[in-house]
Amino acid sequence: MRNINEDNITQAVLAAMSGCRDKRLWTVMVSLVQHLHSFAREVKLTESEWLEGIKFLTGVGHITDERRQEFVLLSDTLGLSMLVTTQNNQKPAECTEATVLGPFFVNGAPEYENGDDISNGAKGLPCFVSGRVCGLSGEPLGDVEIEVWQSDEDGYYDVQYADVAFQGRGRLRTLSDGRFHFRSILAEAYPIPHDGPVGRMLEALGRHPWRPAHLHFWIKAPGYEPLITHVFRNGDQYLDSDAVFGVRSSLVVDWVDHPPGIAPDGTHMDTAFYTLDYDFVLNPVEQHQ
Amino acid sequence: MRNINEDNITQAVLAAMSGCRDKRLWTVMVSLVQHLHSFAREVKLTESEWLEGIKFLTGVGHITDERRQEFVLLSDTLGLSMLVTTQNNQKPAECTEATVLGPFFVNGAPEYENGDDISNGAKGLPCFVSGRVCGLSGEPLGDVEIEVWQSDEDGYYDVQYADVAFQGRGRLRTLSDGRFHFRSILAEAYPIPHDGPVGRMLEALGRHPWRPAHLHFWIKAPGYEPLITHVFRNGDQYLDSDAVFGVRSSLVVDWVDHPPGIAPDGTHMDTAFYTLDYDFVLNPVEQHQ
Repeated sequence: MRNINEDNITQAVLAAMSGCRDKRLWTVMVSLVQHLHSFAREVKLTESEWLEGIKFLTGVGHITDERRQEFVLLSDTLGLSMLVTTQNNQKPAECTEATVLGPFFVNGAPEYENGDDISNGAKGLPCFVSGRVCGLSGEPLGDVEIEVWQSDEDGYYDVQYADVAFQGRGRLRTLSDGRFHFRSILAEAYPIPHDGPVGRMLEALGRHPWRPAHLHFWIKAPGYEPLITHVFRNGDQYLDSDAVFGVRSSLVVDWVDHPPGIAPDGTHMDTAFYTLDYDFVLNPVEQHQ
Repeated sequence: MRNINEDNITQAVLAAMSGCRDKRLWTVMVSLVQHLHSFAREVKLTESEWLEGIKFLTGVGHITDERRQEFVLLSDTLGLSMLVTTQNNQKPAECTEATVLGPFFVNGAPEYENGDDISNGAKGLPCFVSGRVCGLSGEPLGDVEIEVWQSDEDGYYDVQYADVAFQGRGRLRTLSDGRFHFRSILAEAYPIPHDGPVGRMLEALGRHPWRPAHLHFWIKAPGYEPLITHVFRNGDQYLDSDAVFGVRSSLVVDWVDHPPGIAPDGTHMDTAFYTLDYDFVLNPVEQHQ
């Protein structure tokens, strides 16, 4: 099309994609272009605002590296990640709900046995975690991989430190009755990394960067949908204003604090410690709706 | 909001921005979030597609540096740049129309006198460019800055070479009667940089990366709206399928080819050469609509 103007440009862009052989890509891009153009028209985006947008995205790109994923943070803080998670994880009400993966998952976490301390030196009050993995009909799921990762008492994940590898992060397998248990540290509320473009965006929008305390879980059982979720700590002040919109009521649990004394694993604790017990219910692939 | 799901998440994100003190930013972001979420719902974006999007944007960010702006290329190829240009440059019909700035403008281009050769060694057949700058009522605009930039015969701008500075790029000023003239080289059609994520996107969409031959102009006259535009070469095979949707019919002009002989500046040319004459009409700021 030769005489492009404000009114015909959307049609011109769609026409240019008419030779696309990947039908799904075509569908996605048609919708993306239409909404992108509708946004620009609706707010009558100015040239200087467009340039600010280009600079913002350039900044997001330049701070992103193997340890920091600012595009995921951007998606998380705009609610896109949680929207995608929820619309792709519709399950029977009895199943454990999913929530966002977040930007701090990394491959290659160490393997542990049940009962091991996965904190691996991370700072925080001891926390003993236990639970059970079962299917929708209550069937116990043994020998299933559970991956867990969490922040320390200062609110940082291992990957946020320059020289720390694999603290508060590990993989273990359920016992034959579906149960698992490990020792770690108490997760605390923390702000998402906010010294970059996304942090400046939140500040400009009058938003805080905090997330309520939580443990991340990724449970993979053959024949069942993989479950990526959190367990949140009841009473946290940010449960109603999670910066990434990841809280579901069914995932909020009492983490029980105990005075110094005998821990669940029989050891004597000189400090206060916490316990947390949570059962996960997986959705069989056959019943996927 | 604590129990986030597919239906309430958009409202939750908008509610989180209710403390924004910048009303314009708030307006822009409300529309952006609504369209972003509508897009994800409309196509039922999957988690793997979301991850592909994150990886794509990460790649766009990582290839972008001081000499290459892949986010501008992305905006250009999705028609966003031209939409923003057109909706912000509504003028009386007699005025010269605007088009996209493109990713190859750089600050600090050298100053030239009328008659100078701005190619500065860039390769291509000689091209003698002339024209006049006037206001909406025909008033000549003298001593006005004209900035011009263009690709060479291989389709590359100076900034696309590792070690070349300021070829086919310069600033000059109109004479008292509004006229200007300079020597350069013949601009040719060229593909936008397509060895990165945007090039792979175009290929997946069945689109070519070519732009029809053009000269870029940026004209700044006090009391008039700045004009950022191109002059396109009539007959180019890509006038109807510009990869960045920048063609307006009023900007397509005959570039006249001449056999070897006397050039407009009186010199004898041993090779064929081209001439191009185009007049620019600027919109007074007072009559801005």
